[in-house]
Amino acid sequence: MPATDALEEVLSHIDATLPQATGRLLKLMRIPSVSTDPAYKADCAAAADWLTEDLRSIGLTADTRPTPGHPMVLGHAQDCGDGPHLLFYGHYDVQPVDPLNLWHRDPFDPAIEDAPAGQVIRGRGAADDKGQLMTFIEACRAWVAVHGRLPVPVSVFLEGEEESGSPSLVPFLKENTDELRADLALICDTGMFDPETPAITTMLRGLVGEEITIRAASKDLHSGMFGGIAMNPIRVLARIIASLHDDQGRVTLPGFYDGVPDLPPEIAAQWEGLGFDHKAFLGAVGLSEPAGEADRTPLEMIWARPTCEVNGITGGYTGAGFKTVLPAEARAKISFRLVGEQDPHKIRETFRAHVRAMLPPDCEVEFTAHGASPASRMSIDHPAFEAARQALSDEWPREAAFVGSGGSIPVAGYFKSVLGLDSMLIGFGRDDDQIHSPNEKYDMESFHKGIRSWARILAALAR
Amino acid sequence: MPATDALEEVLSHIDATLPQATGRLLKLMRIPSVSTDPAYKADCAAAADWLTEDLRSIGLTADTRPTPGHPMVLGHAQDCGDGPHLLFYGHYDVQPVDPLNLWHRDPFDPAIEDAPAGQVIRGRGAADDKGQLMTFIEACRAWVAVHGRLPVPVSVFLEGEEESGSPSLVPFLKENTDELRADLALICDTGMFDPETPAITTMLRGLVGEEITIRAASKDLHSGMFGGIAMNPIRVLARIIASLHDDQGRVTLPGFYDGVPDLPPEIAAQWEGLGFDHKAFLGAVGLSEPAGEADRTPLEMIWARPTCEVNGITGGYTGAGFKTVLPAEARAKISFRLVGEQDPHKIRETFRAHVRAMLPPDCEVEFTAHGASPASRMSIDHPAFEAARQALSDEWPREAAFVGSGGSIPVAGYFKSVLGLDSMLIGFGRDDDQIHSPNEKYDMESFHKGIRSWARILAALAR
Repeated sequence: MPATDALEEVLSHIDATLPQATGRLLKLMRIPSVSTDPAYKADCAAAADWLTEDLRSIGLTADTRPTPGHPMVLGHAQDCGDGPHLLFYGHYDVQPVDPLNLWHRDPFDPAIEDAPAGQVIRGRGAADDKGQLMTFIEACRAWVAVHGRLPVPVSVFLEGEEESGSPSLVPFLKENTDELRADLALICDTGMFDPETPAITTMLRGLVGEEITIRAASKDLHSGMFGGIAMNPIRVLARIIASLHDDQGRVTLPGFYDGVPDLPPEIAAQWEGLGFDHKAFLGAVGLSEPAGEADRTPLEMIWARPTCEVNGITGGYTGAGFKTVLPAEARAKISFRLVGEQDPHKIRETFRAHVRAMLPPDCEVEFTAHGASPASRMSIDHPAFEAARQALSDEWPREAAFVGSGGSIPVAGYFKSVLGLDSMLIGFGRDDDQIHSPNEKYDMESFHKGIRSWARILAALAR
Repeated sequence: MPATDALEEVLSHIDATLPQATGRLLKLMRIPSVSTDPAYKADCAAAADWLTEDLRSIGLTADTRPTPGHPMVLGHAQDCGDGPHLLFYGHYDVQPVDPLNLWHRDPFDPAIEDAPAGQVIRGRGAADDKGQLMTFIEACRAWVAVHGRLPVPVSVFLEGEEESGSPSLVPFLKENTDELRADLALICDTGMFDPETPAITTMLRGLVGEEITIRAASKDLHSGMFGGIAMNPIRVLARIIASLHDDQGRVTLPGFYDGVPDLPPEIAAQWEGLGFDHKAFLGAVGLSEPAGEADRTPLEMIWARPTCEVNGITGGYTGAGFKTVLPAEARAKISFRLVGEQDPHKIRETFRAHVRAMLPPDCEVEFTAHGASPASRMSIDHPAFEAARQALSDEWPREAAFVGSGGSIPVAGYFKSVLGLDSMLIGFGRDDDQIHSPNEKYDMESFHKGIRSWARILAALAR
């Protein structure tokens, strides 16, 4: 049978069986696999087991592999056509769901909803990353259903700690180097450039997460009795946070910008050609002004510049009404997005030294590390990149683009450093998917055309 | 019967019936009358009803009086000796109990515990203010039990909104001016100078409470996608809080110190004579250095200087682990302690203008007022002050002192401005009572000798 006919049969099968594929995704989303919260440990294991069973059902030899944290899922196709051996990566863990009151439905009771731009799959993990990883598995299922085997060798590798810094990932890669050997990694955890323009992400920011707890008095105090004489750790924390940026939005830590490259002129020109509409991008979430470094373009701010953000803060009385307490401690979660050659460990140490230097008498600080990964830039020399770009362009209205990403996908860096493996990052998320936020969704079109896109890419990579 | 014998009989009765008095206090403490949290509205009403019944049981005509908030309790003794008509004030509402995990027992299941310095009554409200208000009621009960009536005319007035800014207090005073007419108010909501030295508090700081909510994006964002380009309300809030004090610990709001008097030399000399040990005061809560204005003495900081404190802050993800969210909003509860002639309404407006002026583009602020009361300074011309000071000195090891207080007791100002009534503030709390904190307690000695002190004061004021 000609290759194009073989692909068309698979695409038709995907169209005909979309309801069943959607049903499987909803089942997976009902498992509340929140990796950052120990209360959901058993649910993470259940999600891993569900995926192992699903991979087995399409003919892979798959297992749930224990780690000191949440388990990995690893499976290998047994009967395949000829071509580069692909290692597909996704993650089955999801972000916490609070503030729960802002969801308009139970985040773990997902459903298909009608929305202005078409149907969406609503619930935690719809886009990040359960919906995305299932696009690849469903594409494999369709190839196996129609032709009895996959067109190229495929292994599937799924982790459950991506949202909590992937502590078990590098040890697992090191212990299973032989089994994970492949020619190219596929990572499905990124988005489209816009709803009509698919994207292959070639620049990713790194991430350093830090939690700091400032402690002063040995217990909460009454501000009537102690106000004015006792150290207030919220004030100390506020001063520290306020000191991290200057008036131009630059991060003030010494040496923070060491290793940050200027944007190459050819990349700057390509990005300018994308016609990024930052007013629309910000307007969709109720904002209007880019709030980053005053001398950078909006696309640079999100794709090519490092940042320092406060992701959470708490201290004292935060319930209804008022309580005149002087709290014993205050806490903040702070993260840095890294680019270029910035060293995550050096930045963590610089930050800690800065905090210690700002501590007044009677204050102590405790630091908790939450992950550290460098930025990565993909080599696009492998011919699979151009083949995939063409396959994506065949599926979607507009040509696929090579783009940057503000998010961090540390696994790409580890695949390179531990396994020597290049990664191709392709995903079908949209800017308005509300990942990490209440009411996360994945467009039915992302899911459907995502499955079709992978089916095309598998065909395009077959020899 | 000679007056001294009459008093001795009452004191003996108090000693003999202390277990029963303690049992009544524990009953009252078991009612979780948290006024700031609407969830406890019925409990506040139950505490008021319990007190009304208790006042009736010692012969007062008492009623629970509804208000738009929590009810008042008002009772009048019917058969009394001759002397100034006293209006006793206390509050039956208590502070919230969080963080609950730091309590070593259920805060609303109080008990007598053995402690290094003797027995203590442990539980929310033990010292603030249920234990204190019951010292007066028990003293009245003993007078009535032994002699059939009180030695002077007494009215008892208890409110249930003291911990939430007393919104119903002034309207109630205005509507019941005739019924509340008296010669002198007694307020039992303050402490001893030290465990051996009783105190009559003659200077009280005022209080302004403000809650601010900074909003930026219309929903929580992912810091990977939006970090660096979207406004972060936690950073804005931190900058605002950091701007409220200069490096010398002075509040920076324009005109904040208008109306703040310098300490009169004679008061400064009297306070110096008290031998306040700030190292011990701070050391008891794990601190060592006075953290207020660099050029003021420790006693000035807590009794005679205005402050600005942050009592609570929250924003973004504050649970276990890490979440790379850019929150849509951040909130803080901020309070100002006032002295002298500082105008609480002017300070609130100055603060709000300062916050608005610091808002960057795309940010909005919402303000919620939580009470406003000026500072007050008692006139001690009424002969009852010296009589009470002598009675207290008879009960305790050391002479009673006239002192200042860092806390705010707005009712004293309202008694003066609405009823034209001077207040005598006497209480038996200790610095280590942990009011407004976990593990609040009231020493059994405070309770026992507090009851005896009031019995002596009632005798001393009789003509």
